[in-house]
Amino acid sequence: MEFSSKLLEDAVYEMSQLPGIGKRTALRLVLHLLKQPEQRTELLSNALSQLRNSVNFCSSCHNISDTELCEICSNSKRDETLVCVVEDIRDVMAIENTSQYNGLYHVLGGKISPMEGVGPQDLNIVSLIKRVKEGTVNELIFALSSTMEGDTTNFYIYRQLEGLAVTTSTIARGISIGDELEYADEVTLGRSILNRVPFESSIKAS
Amino acid sequence: MEFSSKLLEDAVYEMSQLPGIGKRTALRLVLHLLKQPEQRTELLSNALSQLRNSVNFCSSCHNISDTELCEICSNSKRDETLVCVVEDIRDVMAIENTSQYNGLYHVLGGKISPMEGVGPQDLNIVSLIKRVKEGTVNELIFALSSTMEGDTTNFYIYRQLEGLAVTTSTIARGISIGDELEYADEVTLGRSILNRVPFESSIKAS
Repeated sequence: MEFSSKLLEDAVYEMSQLPGIGKRTALRLVLHLLKQPEQRTELLSNALSQLRNSVNFCSSCHNISDTELCEICSNSKRDETLVCVVEDIRDVMAIENTSQYNGLYHVLGGKISPMEGVGPQDLNIVSLIKRVKEGTVNELIFALSSTMEGDTTNFYIYRQLEGLAVTTSTIARGISIGDELEYADEVTLGRSILNRVPFESSIKAS
Repeated sequence: MEFSSKLLEDAVYEMSQLPGIGKRTALRLVLHLLKQPEQRTELLSNALSQLRNSVNFCSSCHNISDTELCEICSNSKRDETLVCVVEDIRDVMAIENTSQYNGLYHVLGGKISPMEGVGPQDLNIVSLIKRVKEGTVNELIFALSSTMEGDTTNFYIYRQLEGLAVTTSTIARGISIGDELEYADEVTLGRSILNRVPFESSIKAS
């Protein structure tokens, strides 16, 4: 693509560095901004640089927060004996949206992936072990994605917890509620039969 | 979606104002920026605000340009008697990529669309008529999209040109080169038969 302006080329290049945004889409977005009032671009560019410069992570759970301790960690009504281990803050938002969980979180910031050069030292694992050692946590719930990387990360943390007085669990995997059996993938369906639950407890949950 | 940080919420909101970017995608993009070095965000935010603040449009054809007159308009090798009328600068880039056109352009900046509140006064039509009146232009090529709005705009300009010594043409519409007839839409196929060209001239063009 040949650009008639260096300024335009720079803006399109920087925009196309975002994931899932190619050169054409970047050009469309940048031209859209040019048609909008100047203020629009200013708001966007300020919001991005302010976030990047002043972003703060909760000192306990590593969730993004404007305060030293995030709203969840500082809420005395939440059960601090329960900690749900998640990959990133989108998972916190997803679980919060269910209104089914009243414990705290621990955001790892990714999962162990040798392919992408992410090792245990790149994740918030040391601080998780420290939280457990401090003694208030009774149960860790692993809620990472069920991929090779997720399983590796779960197992790595599990090994680090050896000898500590904490229960570990993982979220239930199975057929989604409302799904037809015939369309479910074989692995999930197979696991959901192996890991069947007593009928009485399934009634209670619903 | 509930955000744990006002800064994050603002950034996601501003990002989601871009066309085709919803809240979820905006969140993904913003979190990506947070994982990247700070410099990345700074480059993006600076490129956008610099473009918006210093953007300049060619005084003749309204293409985006860093100079008073764009590279195309100031190129003495180009045929200044030929002007191609297009909707926006993406069309200029598309035509330039073909390397088949050696004339100049005129960027309207949109098309007449009462539905979206765009009237002739919002487009660069007055300056186009002025260019024609100055007398160097022999032919105007209309290259707007063949929609109701494009046709309306073509016709509006055509009426404004009455009495001026200028030829008008539109780009050829027909079956794309390499396309199978059976998959072509009926309107295009019908028009391509009505507007058939002498076989000799089709040989010359290829």
